[in-house]
Amino acid sequence: MSLSIYLAGQIHDDWREQLKQKSKEQNLDIQFYGPQEEHALSDDIGENILDKQPNQVYRDDTGASINNFRTDIMMSKSDAVIALFGESYKQWNTAMDAGIAIGLNKPLILIRPDSLIHPLKELSNKASVTVENIDQALEVLKYYYK
Amino acid sequence: MSLSIYLAGQIHDDWREQLKQKSKEQNLDIQFYGPQEEHALSDDIGENILDKQPNQVYRDDTGASINNFRTDIMMSKSDAVIALFGESYKQWNTAMDAGIAIGLNKPLILIRPDSLIHPLKELSNKASVTVENIDQALEVLKYYYK
Amino acid sequence: MSLSIYLAGQIHDDWREQLKQKSKEQNLDIQFYGPQEEHALSDDIGENILDKQPNQVYRDDTGASINNFRTDIMMSKSDAVIALFGESYKQWNTAMDAGIAIGLNKPLILIRPDSLIHPLKELSNKASVTVENIDQALEVLKYYYK
Amino acid sequence: MSLSIYLAGQIHDDWREQLKQKSKEQNLDIQFYGPQEEHALSDDIGENILDKQPNQVYRDDTGASINNFRTDIMMSKSDAVIALFGESYKQWNTAMDAGIAIGLNKPLILIRPDSLIHPLKELSNKASVTVENIDQALEVLKYYYK
Amino acid sequence: MSLSIYLAGQIHDDWREQLKQKSKEQNLDIQFYGPQEEHALSDDIGENILDKQPNQVYRDDTGASINNFRTDIMMSKSDAVIALFGESYKQWNTAMDAGIAIGLNKPLILIRPDSLIHPLKELSNKASVTVENIDQALEVLKYYYK
Amino acid sequence: MSLSIYLAGQIHDDWREQLKQKSKEQNLDIQFYGPQEEHALSDDIGENILDKQPNQVYRDDTGASINNFRTDIMMSKSDAVIALFGESYKQWNTAMDAGIAIGLNKPLILIRPDSLIHPLKELSNKASVTVENIDQALEVLKYYYK
Amino acid sequence: MSLSIYLAGQIHDDWREQLKQKSKEQNLDIQFYGPQEEHALSDDIGENILDKQPNQVYRDDTGASINNFRTDIMMSKSDAVIALFGESYKQWNTAMDAGIAIGLNKPLILIRPDSLIHPLKELSNKASVTVENIDQALEVLKYYYK
Amino acid sequence: MSLSIYLAGQIHDDWREQLKQKSKEQNLDIQFYGPQEEHALSDDIGENILDKQPNQVYRDDTGASINNFRTDIMMSKSDAVIALFGESYKQWNTAMDAGIAIGLNKPLILIRPDSLIHPLKELSNKASVTVENIDQALEVLKYYYK
Repeated sequence: MSLSIYLAGQIHDDWREQLKQKSKEQNLDIQFYGPQEEHALSDDIGENILDKQPNQVYRDDTGASINNFRTDIMMSKSDAVIALFGESYKQWNTAMDAGIAIGLNKPLILIRPDSLIHPLKELSNKASVTVENIDQALEVLKYYYK
Repeated sequence: MSLSIYLAGQIHDDWREQLKQKSKEQNLDIQFYGPQEEHALSDDIGENILDKQPNQVYRDDTGASINNFRTDIMMSKSDAVIALFGESYKQWNTAMDAGIAIGLNKPLILIRPDSLIHPLKELSNKASVTVENIDQALEVLKYYYK
Repeated sequence: MSLSIYLAGQIHDDWREQLKQKSKEQNLDIQFYGPQEEHALSDDIGENILDKQPNQVYRDDTGASINNFRTDIMMSKSDAVIALFGESYKQWNTAMDAGIAIGLNKPLILIRPDSLIHPLKELSNKASVTVENIDQALEVLKYYYK
Repeated sequence: MSLSIYLAGQIHDDWREQLKQKSKEQNLDIQFYGPQEEHALSDDIGENILDKQPNQVYRDDTGASINNFRTDIMMSKSDAVIALFGESYKQWNTAMDAGIAIGLNKPLILIRPDSLIHPLKELSNKASVTVENIDQALEVLKYYYK
Repeated sequence: MSLSIYLAGQIHDDWREQLKQKSKEQNLDIQFYGPQEEHALSDDIGENILDKQPNQVYRDDTGASINNFRTDIMMSKSDAVIALFGESYKQWNTAMDAGIAIGLNKPLILIRPDSLIHPLKELSNKASVTVENIDQALEVLKYYYK
Repeated sequence: MSLSIYLAGQIHDDWREQLKQKSKEQNLDIQFYGPQEEHALSDDIGENILDKQPNQVYRDDTGASINNFRTDIMMSKSDAVIALFGESYKQWNTAMDAGIAIGLNKPLILIRPDSLIHPLKELSNKASVTVENIDQALEVLKYYYK
Repeated sequence: MSLSIYLAGQIHDDWREQLKQKSKEQNLDIQFYGPQEEHALSDDIGENILDKQPNQVYRDDTGASINNFRTDIMMSKSDAVIALFGESYKQWNTAMDAGIAIGLNKPLILIRPDSLIHPLKELSNKASVTVENIDQALEVLKYYYK
Repeated sequence: MSLSIYLAGQIHDDWREQLKQKSKEQNLDIQFYGPQEEHALSDDIGENILDKQPNQVYRDDTGASINNFRTDIMMSKSDAVIALFGESYKQWNTAMDAGIAIGLNKPLILIRPDSLIHPLKELSNKASVTVENIDQALEVLKYYYK
């Protein structure tokens, strides 16, 4: 009855740690995956491995290729995806990852605060479940075990 | 040698009309699809058909369900998707549609201005081709016919 | 911009004829498919072709095999499915066809009267769009052409 | 040689418990999944997690989304599905789950009492095996180990 | 409402011509595909194109590769497959083609004379419809148009 | 580095036991699956579970449905399929199982004696590997571990 | 009975023109697709559309992205692929395109001169048909119409 | 968090051993698969198992069939593929394996020395990540665990 969950969303605060901590406190048998959360590493990984690129476009593309490789494998190993949106940042990666999950038929939980109802209405409609915060997302996962 | 292309992106200016006009001027045999561009209609379509909903969440969800139904059919009939990002608006629908195209293995052209290189780096890396403007996107389509 | 739509649901009244007539009046370019509506023929088709079967189970199974063959081909040719439920009849075929459409990722419109909200809540949640009557379903199809 | 089986069907009596008990008595290595059987919890789960909804439609839809999320994961982990029908209740969820299994090419055992032969004839024809009671369904599972 | 049907089965008599003729007499809009019916050509095609092979194994394999190439394309263009068995010949190609159709989820009509009920019982159970002769198979196709 | 292999073929002699024994003697980590080899049980299983059927057609179809359910699960758990043909019996099940494996893209080893080269030429051409006896088939499996 | 064929292979001589001409002379109803044959254009297309890139790596990657977009659409519209190898050039694109066709289950004809038997043995084994020259490849296509 | 990786590429030097050794030194939990690296065995395996073939074409084809059977199973068990190109050998197998990985949507790391930028540009563009040496490839795998 174990679950594997990919946690899509921004990497600027510790929401994944909170979710993992709460899951652990409740002894849920869940393996969490997610993007590289050390922001500098996520940005630098391309040049770290492949040396200095000629400009910002290719610096970014090189890093992105390695982040995507990692995400592709993790998402293919996941039973479901949680995508969290907040009021800061562009979060296009989050929306893309949610879209990929939809295209691959992976069950998807959208975490969407009240203030973002309108701009996320199509994504919410395509998600399996829409909640407002990580506690509610965890409640949905707990229901799997009931 | 005809093509069907879905045009994902914001609906606040006439970029699709420009693209279609230029395609027509060059006699390209392309059927373009895209989201409902009459903004008020896109927002109201849920309540237009299904009557007043109890609150904004469900007004939006109802409209989104009908927009998504339309998009799903159009995307399944398309040979490729063009996703345009600009400097205004949240554009999460655009990123989601691009993600769905990726999940479904549809070839994808990303139109991304210089200013958005960093936040769209993972999406650009997963797109088939990244260009900066609609003229370049049309050049890519024209190359299909050469 | 043509559409092909499979009409799942009971065959005891003329709802499909009404829908087709309204579609025609509005000049929508839609090819409708649906189950055999001549009820006696639908029940007898097995024995009509394969002669008398030894009992009711096999009389029914034989007819069902031929009805299913027909539906499988039609559904594979359809861009979307409409499933209508009413207050009479068991309508398990309708629910099965809707389930198959979901399993095959075909966009699905559910027509559900108010009285059936609770027992169809999981199906409604998985449908692309839920409406209450055939006029609303047709409005959703019309929106494809706008 | 272990099996994972999803048990679709009504949640008003203890048929799943009977089946699991008999499986256990015979030391079959089977992991059973199934819908939430605590009926009130199944109906309330949406508002339990997401607070009071504005009306019955959305109360039901919210709960259904969480039930469907749970079922989607369980069904994807299952080797086969058993769908039981009885003489009470509408059982459209059961028919939908069976349809989804068919659409996904999951082997399907239909449990159908004699009285329901005619209305379930198309579903029976699409099922892998049709039996009349849970003892027979268990015999089919046991045959896997022989 | 047109259909494309692949006719699997032996090529030693004119059963396909009979079926096509009857279909034509009834003005059914059906495109029929099938294996190469000129037996010598079917056996010789490998060496006709690729010159003398070193032994019978490779003479046969070369011809088979070209027959299979042709069949693969035809089957992928077909809406359904008819597989006819008779009392003569080994007919393993027919059984293989039927199996491929099953693996690809193509609807399948099995034509099986009474004398072959037992050895074809698993194949019959997996076929969409089992009939005894080509007239009955044509009746099943005609039902598509009713 | 473990393998799961489905052994398709006739059930009239002990070829599977020989293959399993040899595999065991060489300490290969292989899980073998296969059809019910107790012939009477394979024929009777339908009526054993579902009681006397009205005639031979339905006695056979009922048994076949339960054999197919078992095979479908086993084949979906297998990494590859071995199909053995001999000079006796019709062996249409073997050819169908091989065809299903081809349709599902499962790697396939064909065991074909010299005398059957011509009638199995298309199947041999579609198999991954063709050998003449079970010792050679086992050598192919052993090569996986080298 | 029309065919669409993608012609993978080097673009340094006029083998595609020869094949098309011969096909035309024999009135075969075939739509041929293939890579951009104007070599300079194929190399320059990236910078033609996207301006000067910072170095050769990215000049090449940009051009490749547009060539791949074109090929992806063409291959998805093709019924089969022909891959021609010769004694000059690295031809890794040809081998990659053939591999993609194999991964997508597209029927594949390999044109392989005698001198390349050994290095193309695995690809030849996975191709549907292997021939030695374009005349033989055309004969295989003609057999489709016989 | 374990990974399974298929190592496509030439078998003339010990690059796989180097990669495995380095992975081991860093305690990465990775199962590596790859082609038969004992060159003579890889060439002889067909005749070793199936006896002397009539000529070189069929000697090679027989061996290739057994190598492909092995690779197909290994690739289907892999989370990702690494394809290494060097300056020697034709390496069409490597390009084909990379193409199959692309067709199957397996994440792909391309190892490409500077000297091969141009002839591998389309393959590089389709790979998930392109690096120049095995140390960099291992860094990409390590990033999965960070």
